Amino acid sequence: MTDRRIVALAGGVGGAKLADGLARVLGDRLVVVVNTGDDFEHLGLHISPDLDTVMYTLAGIADPERGWGIRDESWTFMEQVSRLGGPDWFRLGDRDIATHAIRTYRLRAGDTLTAVTADLCRSLGISSQLLPMSDQPVRTKVHSGGLTLPFQDYFVRLRCEIPVERLSFDGDAAAHLNPLVEAMRGAETPEAIIICPSNPYLSVDPILSVPAMRGWIKDTGAPVIAVSPIVGGTAIKGPAAKIMQELGVQPSVTSVAAHYRGLIDGLVIDTIDDVHVADIQAMGIATNVTGTVMRSIEDRKTLAQSCLTFLKTLGSGIR
Amino acid sequence: MTDRRIVALAGGVGGAKLADGLARVLGDRLVVVVNTGDDFEHLGLHISPDLDTVMYTLAGIADPERGWGIRDESWTFMEQVSRLGGPDWFRLGDRDIATHAIRTYRLRAGDTLTAVTADLCRSLGISSQLLPMSDQPVRTKVHSGGLTLPFQDYFVRLRCEIPVERLSFDGDAAAHLNPLVEAMRGAETPEAIIICPSNPYLSVDPILSVPAMRGWIKDTGAPVIAVSPIVGGTAIKGPAAKIMQELGVQPSVTSVAAHYRGLIDGLVIDTIDDVHVADIQAMGIATNVTGTVMRSIEDRKTLAQSCLTFLKTLGSGIR
Repeated sequence: MTDRRIVALAGGVGGAKLADGLARVLGDRLVVVVNTGDDFEHLGLHISPDLDTVMYTLAGIADPERGWGIRDESWTFMEQVSRLGGPDWFRLGDRDIATHAIRTYRLRAGDTLTAVTADLCRSLGISSQLLPMSDQPVRTKVHSGGLTLPFQDYFVRLRCEIPVERLSFDGDAAAHLNPLVEAMRGAETPEAIIICPSNPYLSVDPILSVPAMRGWIKDTGAPVIAVSPIVGGTAIKGPAAKIMQELGVQPSVTSVAAHYRGLIDGLVIDTIDDVHVADIQAMGIATNVTGTVMRSIEDRKTLAQSCLTFLKTLGSGIR
Repeated sequence: MTDRRIVALAGGVGGAKLADGLARVLGDRLVVVVNTGDDFEHLGLHISPDLDTVMYTLAGIADPERGWGIRDESWTFMEQVSRLGGPDWFRLGDRDIATHAIRTYRLRAGDTLTAVTADLCRSLGISSQLLPMSDQPVRTKVHSGGLTLPFQDYFVRLRCEIPVERLSFDGDAAAHLNPLVEAMRGAETPEAIIICPSNPYLSVDPILSVPAMRGWIKDTGAPVIAVSPIVGGTAIKGPAAKIMQELGVQPSVTSVAAHYRGLIDGLVIDTIDDVHVADIQAMGIATNVTGTVMRSIEDRKTLAQSCLTFLKTLGSGIR
């Protein structure tokens, strides 16, 4: 029974929902390391889609239907961009741009993404700690038919319509661990590490591509679990199942287990997938079968609690 | 009687109004060279206040009461910037930011301010040509009590409350003439040059500080007139009269004439100032006494026509 902190790794919507459930249970004991592989510059603004999704979700201002941006948003800026013949394929709401503008001018002034994110979170009343996976740029690229596409071109502009042959994370070799994760290394053992139900290829692999990240996770000795984003052979949201097929991998919880094999001690899967328990346990990975689809705030908290209970069975001293 | 083009030099609101009157009479025969000494970067965005004021005025979308920005503006972005603890001393409307964002990303991509301005004007249906005085940065600095302040800090943040001891235009020595003005040089004689009723110190001097600008104006041989921004010893809008006093100059049309002496052939002054005609003519500057206060669109056209008629008496072959 300790008050040690718990680290979650998260990408976009699904990851943000579980991170929110964990934040509601753990408050300032939660550290969320967020994917920045999707970050890009648009209209001169530095945009961090996953950081924003997690931040807006934990602040309770995320738009529940669109899956990105702020609720009750207005679009005056975007209308004027179209009128002026500017690029309007990536939509930015009037409130949302405030985040990007503040982030951009502070980064230009020499602040780190970690520092800017901390201040934005404080302004939004978030008590958990949100950390970009690295303060250096790591950029996810989609390789398809001889083309190399920046992530947003693939994801937003082409709506994931081309087949993914390979993914790479430009800049990964030169990136450093987030300085606050680096500070934890050796000095503090987290109680547990939870890989949220985000896309393993597009959201979690970029985080794991940062040198020393994978090693740090193993070296902590803390139990590590993942929550499968694949439920009943498909993804709740986003292109995870489609990409797995394109990469020649069967979209299933077993494939998710195989993907994280060697890194995780346990996998949380949905009740619909309980037929796969034996296959997963055969890999030396424990399983927790529960409802993993989060439709309400209550669902988020319930899944978070289920994860914490599961971690106790794996040796965590979580209170 | 020719179709040669007419060049106007303009800064903010007063200059924009006359530029609009001229544009309504001359259409694509009007070239407006605009002050960019007030340009600055804010929230990561490149803002060109005078270019925007002239552009919005000629497009018929300028806010008539505020004196800057777009009419029927909304302020959702600004509210969110305040909420996030960002700098909110310089207000940017939701529509207005579209201009700055498009300009910023295109400048970053290597386009010139001239090219970006031309495209924005085309999108807004402006047939006259708006040219930044230079594509290189020239930045107006206010010197006061040992301090050197960027223009917007003086103008917006400190509301002109400190006395101006001296002005300088950083970067002026390295700046080139706008390339389209450079292309006119030698190849085309404008019909006339009109200095709009903008602040002589803050708006017109920066334009004249660009190397070769003053020489080009003289070398064209075209008649040059100015319209006095000082009416009855005071400025219609803005700090021109206050600054003149701080610089030890009597705020009067005679002082305006003295300021432009050697550059202009004629000065347009308001009927209220007709007592100064003899003093101005004694400097070898012709005068045109007329109503110069522009309250309506009709006033703008009337003053523009009066300027063109005056120019004919100075040898211009304006149709």
